Amino acid sequence: MDFAFDARTEELRASMLDFMEHHVYPAEKVFHDQLEELDDRWAWDSAPVIGELRAEARRRGLWNLFLPGEEGGGLTNVQYATLAEISGRSMHLAPAAMNCAAPDTGNMEVLAVAGSDAQKKKWLEPLLNGEIRSAFAMTEPDVASSDATNVELSIVRDGDSYVLNGRKWWITGAMNPNAKIFVVMGKTDPTADRHRQQSMILVERDTPGFEVVRAMHVLGYDDHEHGGHAELRFTDVRVPAENLLMGEGDGFAIAQMRLGPGRIHHCMRSIGIAERAVELMCERADSRVAFGRKLSEQGVIRDWIAESRVRIEQLRLLCLKAAWLMDTQGNKAAHTEIQMIKIATPAAVEWILDKAIQTHGAGGLSQDFPLANMIAGIRTLRFADGPDEVHKNALARAELRRQADRREGRS
Amino acid sequence: MDFAFDARTEELRASMLDFMEHHVYPAEKVFHDQLEELDDRWAWDSAPVIGELRAEARRRGLWNLFLPGEEGGGLTNVQYATLAEISGRSMHLAPAAMNCAAPDTGNMEVLAVAGSDAQKKKWLEPLLNGEIRSAFAMTEPDVASSDATNVELSIVRDGDSYVLNGRKWWITGAMNPNAKIFVVMGKTDPTADRHRQQSMILVERDTPGFEVVRAMHVLGYDDHEHGGHAELRFTDVRVPAENLLMGEGDGFAIAQMRLGPGRIHHCMRSIGIAERAVELMCERADSRVAFGRKLSEQGVIRDWIAESRVRIEQLRLLCLKAAWLMDTQGNKAAHTEIQMIKIATPAAVEWILDKAIQTHGAGGLSQDFPLANMIAGIRTLRFADGPDEVHKNALARAELRRQADRREGRS
Amino acid sequence: MDFAFDARTEELRASMLDFMEHHVYPAEKVFHDQLEELDDRWAWDSAPVIGELRAEARRRGLWNLFLPGEEGGGLTNVQYATLAEISGRSMHLAPAAMNCAAPDTGNMEVLAVAGSDAQKKKWLEPLLNGEIRSAFAMTEPDVASSDATNVELSIVRDGDSYVLNGRKWWITGAMNPNAKIFVVMGKTDPTADRHRQQSMILVERDTPGFEVVRAMHVLGYDDHEHGGHAELRFTDVRVPAENLLMGEGDGFAIAQMRLGPGRIHHCMRSIGIAERAVELMCERADSRVAFGRKLSEQGVIRDWIAESRVRIEQLRLLCLKAAWLMDTQGNKAAHTEIQMIKIATPAAVEWILDKAIQTHGAGGLSQDFPLANMIAGIRTLRFADGPDEVHKNALARAELRRQADRREGRS
Amino acid sequence: MDFAFDARTEELRASMLDFMEHHVYPAEKVFHDQLEELDDRWAWDSAPVIGELRAEARRRGLWNLFLPGEEGGGLTNVQYATLAEISGRSMHLAPAAMNCAAPDTGNMEVLAVAGSDAQKKKWLEPLLNGEIRSAFAMTEPDVASSDATNVELSIVRDGDSYVLNGRKWWITGAMNPNAKIFVVMGKTDPTADRHRQQSMILVERDTPGFEVVRAMHVLGYDDHEHGGHAELRFTDVRVPAENLLMGEGDGFAIAQMRLGPGRIHHCMRSIGIAERAVELMCERADSRVAFGRKLSEQGVIRDWIAESRVRIEQLRLLCLKAAWLMDTQGNKAAHTEIQMIKIATPAAVEWILDKAIQTHGAGGLSQDFPLANMIAGIRTLRFADGPDEVHKNALARAELRRQADRREGRS
Repeated sequence: MDFAFDARTEELRASMLDFMEHHVYPAEKVFHDQLEELDDRWAWDSAPVIGELRAEARRRGLWNLFLPGEEGGGLTNVQYATLAEISGRSMHLAPAAMNCAAPDTGNMEVLAVAGSDAQKKKWLEPLLNGEIRSAFAMTEPDVASSDATNVELSIVRDGDSYVLNGRKWWITGAMNPNAKIFVVMGKTDPTADRHRQQSMILVERDTPGFEVVRAMHVLGYDDHEHGGHAELRFTDVRVPAENLLMGEGDGFAIAQMRLGPGRIHHCMRSIGIAERAVELMCERADSRVAFGRKLSEQGVIRDWIAESRVRIEQLRLLCLKAAWLMDTQGNKAAHTEIQMIKIATPAAVEWILDKAIQTHGAGGLSQDFPLANMIAGIRTLRFADGPDEVHKNALARAELRRQADRREGRS
Repeated sequence: MDFAFDARTEELRASMLDFMEHHVYPAEKVFHDQLEELDDRWAWDSAPVIGELRAEARRRGLWNLFLPGEEGGGLTNVQYATLAEISGRSMHLAPAAMNCAAPDTGNMEVLAVAGSDAQKKKWLEPLLNGEIRSAFAMTEPDVASSDATNVELSIVRDGDSYVLNGRKWWITGAMNPNAKIFVVMGKTDPTADRHRQQSMILVERDTPGFEVVRAMHVLGYDDHEHGGHAELRFTDVRVPAENLLMGEGDGFAIAQMRLGPGRIHHCMRSIGIAERAVELMCERADSRVAFGRKLSEQGVIRDWIAESRVRIEQLRLLCLKAAWLMDTQGNKAAHTEIQMIKIATPAAVEWILDKAIQTHGAGGLSQDFPLANMIAGIRTLRFADGPDEVHKNALARAELRRQADRREGRS
Repeated sequence: MDFAFDARTEELRASMLDFMEHHVYPAEKVFHDQLEELDDRWAWDSAPVIGELRAEARRRGLWNLFLPGEEGGGLTNVQYATLAEISGRSMHLAPAAMNCAAPDTGNMEVLAVAGSDAQKKKWLEPLLNGEIRSAFAMTEPDVASSDATNVELSIVRDGDSYVLNGRKWWITGAMNPNAKIFVVMGKTDPTADRHRQQSMILVERDTPGFEVVRAMHVLGYDDHEHGGHAELRFTDVRVPAENLLMGEGDGFAIAQMRLGPGRIHHCMRSIGIAERAVELMCERADSRVAFGRKLSEQGVIRDWIAESRVRIEQLRLLCLKAAWLMDTQGNKAAHTEIQMIKIATPAAVEWILDKAIQTHGAGGLSQDFPLANMIAGIRTLRFADGPDEVHKNALARAELRRQADRREGRS
Repeated sequence: MDFAFDARTEELRASMLDFMEHHVYPAEKVFHDQLEELDDRWAWDSAPVIGELRAEARRRGLWNLFLPGEEGGGLTNVQYATLAEISGRSMHLAPAAMNCAAPDTGNMEVLAVAGSDAQKKKWLEPLLNGEIRSAFAMTEPDVASSDATNVELSIVRDGDSYVLNGRKWWITGAMNPNAKIFVVMGKTDPTADRHRQQSMILVERDTPGFEVVRAMHVLGYDDHEHGGHAELRFTDVRVPAENLLMGEGDGFAIAQMRLGPGRIHHCMRSIGIAERAVELMCERADSRVAFGRKLSEQGVIRDWIAESRVRIEQLRLLCLKAAWLMDTQGNKAAHTEIQMIKIATPAAVEWILDKAIQTHGAGGLSQDFPLANMIAGIRTLRFADGPDEVHKNALARAELRRQADRREGRS
């Protein structure tokens, strides 16, 4: 058992912390101001500062680190996890600056593993170069999104094409006009086995019949800083057959493959958010005086700070262990731990954000601090890929089975 | 001891419930749509449906009920509290429709009690008629707003005028151009006794030197549906001396007087919000199926519903008792109970809203349901007039004193 | 709406508070010491101080107040509830001193309402005089006790007798040899309608075949101060037919009738426990110094004290409202509120006790303070008459039904 | 980063799990019965089954594993931590069977590190052989035990002796007559520097003036299964000067040294308790039917099981990391993490035990299951070496300092 970072991680961490300090944090206000002046407020990657940060990140080799293998950083999940955490401290800028922002990351992974050479050439390359954006269209308004087998958008073969009909919503990044390519999940064969009905197909933004209907809000935010969350309508959208990812019926398997690393990234970035919140909470507590004493000398505030630290440390270790399991035993072996971090992360981080906000007074809820926006982002995690309650139910079922096996000598 | 409503309350309740059912609820979507089309999005009371609802409310005698005495409904706090709760079910419309929306209510109370005849004629009358709006400017960015003695805006006598300099923020309703009159608290004599330094003065919107700097956001919302929350700057704002409310040094006393009923109204409206959330939660739970069973048949959801009911019932009784104490023994005697409801209300209602949202899936956080907006409103209550922690501290001090008195035979 | 006590209640409260101050509290240590010296440690009512307190209580008219009508105090539920709360402050002594201790109270109620003249003469009279004790035998080890229809003990008619076979456990008071009479619930007709299978019958302690098997512990306590909790075995226990309460099949109805007032008493006494805990917490906090400041000046402790006060006030009002509903609209109309207080009481009181203990340091868990013993008593309330979860489930079902009725215009 | 056990740990784990399965668990009931029949109920190690288990543990090399270096198992803290967890599953038997039970472990550590050769020969050897028991006397009734510098027992040099006067309480194991040797902390020089006033000295049980006054209870339990918790009085207790551990003034340093490993052991054993509770909860949930369905199929119960798993996994990783820090960077570097596990462990384990009890119905609180006794043990952990609040306060202070250093570029 060893809790130390390896040398490669230490080196990247140092480089990244320096990058954050000298480039990312100073750019936060700049980005915000440039966003206000864009012609299309959704096209966040058109802000000049994004280009500058990306150039610097590439120069430092902090580019596409999320992707294993030669095309990316060649990092393990454990190695990358720590970097993902750091990027979460500036959640609107750092992941984007390093070309490590969802949903592009998951889409690039899918293309790298499941894409044909032609698909890779056409879409993976510009994505890896940060030239275009992408979206992942799975969740639908009328069905429980916790179960990927529920998708109802229909994908019907017609000659050399597939024709798509249906609706999607909460498609992150899709409001950005630079999101040129959509990875869309739908049903090709409703009569097949439950996990073989789904396929994934690539749809270009300008395909006739494809419509971005509206932007969904989260609390009061439209999240234009990363392309919003769109409702989409597909009406007889015709796509060349070669846009299919792998074969018909492979959609569910691809979705599963995409899920594990994505959750680890998301949870680690959330820990970065929590760390930033603790920083802000401590800074505020040290600078604000109430009733003759600094907030940082008052018992209730101290209780929050201590609790925050205790919760973060436990959560981070669990996330890292899940990453380690993926590295050493594969996605499937890490299934239970990945479920656990999905449950544990929003619970801990939301609590910490709430206390950080409370320490700031009403300003903490406003645009003057990033905390309110952070809480909106974290709150959605309690629904993403299914509500907590679904994951808890599944986790309990697994535990009950494991215990029954033990009692009956099967393990 | 008697927990029944009296006849007058029953009658008004019935009228109001009918008004809600047939006029207010159907107008919610209309109001939302009309708001989108206003020239000035902050001028919510220019939406035609507001005028229609107000006419209907007046016709039914559901007008200015918040105000005791002849000018208002002649109701006790207990009687009005129950009506305030009902109005909270449609928080953007019902209080406004009945001319019972904060901060106008508090300002009208102040004018009714502390205003000179000339002040009443000029500002109270149009307010009672719903012709203009108002704002109450107390909280400041640089000082802890939990203590009214902290205000720093300076009010200096100069001949027949007072000259104001300073800043205010979180001034609710002030973005609305129809908010014509501001009740402003500041310091006239920083050398006087701690509770005699403050005065209140009336400032008209178009006074030179008065600026609305910007709108504060709450969790992404700008709350333009009730005039937003503004930051204000006062630069040599010159106001006629007769605009002073009562005398110099009376500001703190007026603020205290305004506080008690305001908190009861706010807490009762919050209970109305909680009831609406339970309605939505039950409706959703009965209509949504997951894993082969309705949500309403699943244990965890049922637990939330039961807990919500138990918390609401307890909270309402405490609020009503506080109102009863004000009616029978005066504001001061009700001080502790008013502090309690200030602490208890957001804790209960925020929890219920969170569960109602979770029952709705991601849509619960979006603009498709009123729940996310409600949580933003309730979350601010944990800061309004000082954060929970300050109130808890004061409540504990009072309890410790009471217990010490008891132990030492003083009570 | 009126939150004031009536004159009769005020008078009894004053008398009772005086009785507590001058007789009960000083007797606590005496009782504890006398208990140690009893030949039979379960025979708590043989301690001389009990007799002395009872004489004083009778002298003051504080006797059998729990019982409505002529035989008792002629009090309403609301009136008695307040007195029950006060008695809870000294839970081992005060209810016993006033002949208002469970389970005798419920048994006397049952006998008063459902007993024949002969039964009243033989058992109700000595109970009302405090000459004997009693027990109520319903819960069984093998079935869920949350549902009275689950009881399995068999009661079979045989000539002029009934013959009982089966087991019971958690029969409070039954270890006390002075518990002379047992109200036993069992099944007389397993083929009848679900709520007509059960009957109640009176069994004298010395009946052949009746065995007290063992004492159940709660946490580490055997609760000998009120007769413990026994496991009982009935082996061909033959009882005269006239010992049946009312008719065959009336058992369930009698059990229901007994339940409502019992829960109110229990919850109000629990509030008395909570008040005592707050007293102890404040006293400790004012007298203990840590890190240079009194505990009572430290933020976290103050937070606990404030929270305790807020929770108690809300809980008490809910209990009183449930009592008022019983008084004005009957047990059935109060059903939902009684379920609510069953859920709300242990949650609030256990939390308060936990904080009061924590304020006392390790001594708080020991025999040096009553707090640890109190928590054991309150913890059982989360199971009594069925676990919280069962009650919450039922409460949610009722709420869902009510909401559906509302939506569909049926209410 | 590596989360796998090393080979030595795997081997010992396997051996220990086998020992638990075939020897310890079957002995639990035997031990309980034998305890009942002892002449002195406190002399738990006189129960024959203890001797048998110890013989088997020695045979397997599962003896004194807690002790680093040659005299013990030569294990690192990380290696031993995992074994301590397993022993916690049978908390009354397994640690004792392996001679790894507190407070003997800490005392043996102290003697091994700080004892003179003569002290080792006389007391460490019989302790390592399991021939005698010991106690550690630090906490005192009148001072806050969270700070070791508060001890007031006086140790005064008088010729070749030291003379002790003062009181101690909560001295675990001290009721056992076989606890022959006491490690006593007191003050030798009240005028010295704050951390140099204290010394530790060895006191034999039969020294004149040494009295065991009484047994402290914990939630009704006297914990005679491991020798109880005693109050001690020292009246002119005269001890040879060579009984001093190290030199005068070294007491605080020795106490600190003892603390780190002790907390890790305690927390890991507590995790073992939590795992046992989850086992019992799952077994019960799978076997009990309510309202027509197994408890294990009901949502609320599943929620508890999932939450329990998520909390245990996080907590264990934090404890292991603290152990790893001690191994690799020393006790001092692990200070913050040790404080965290002290805070996190009781919070998590108490919650799990509460839910496990609730799943069992009232029986869960009784002597029929180990759960109630477990909760008493864990509850004390919130006070041991100072209440949670003290540790949280210190942890927050450290975090605030760390954050200030970061802000100001000092780290």
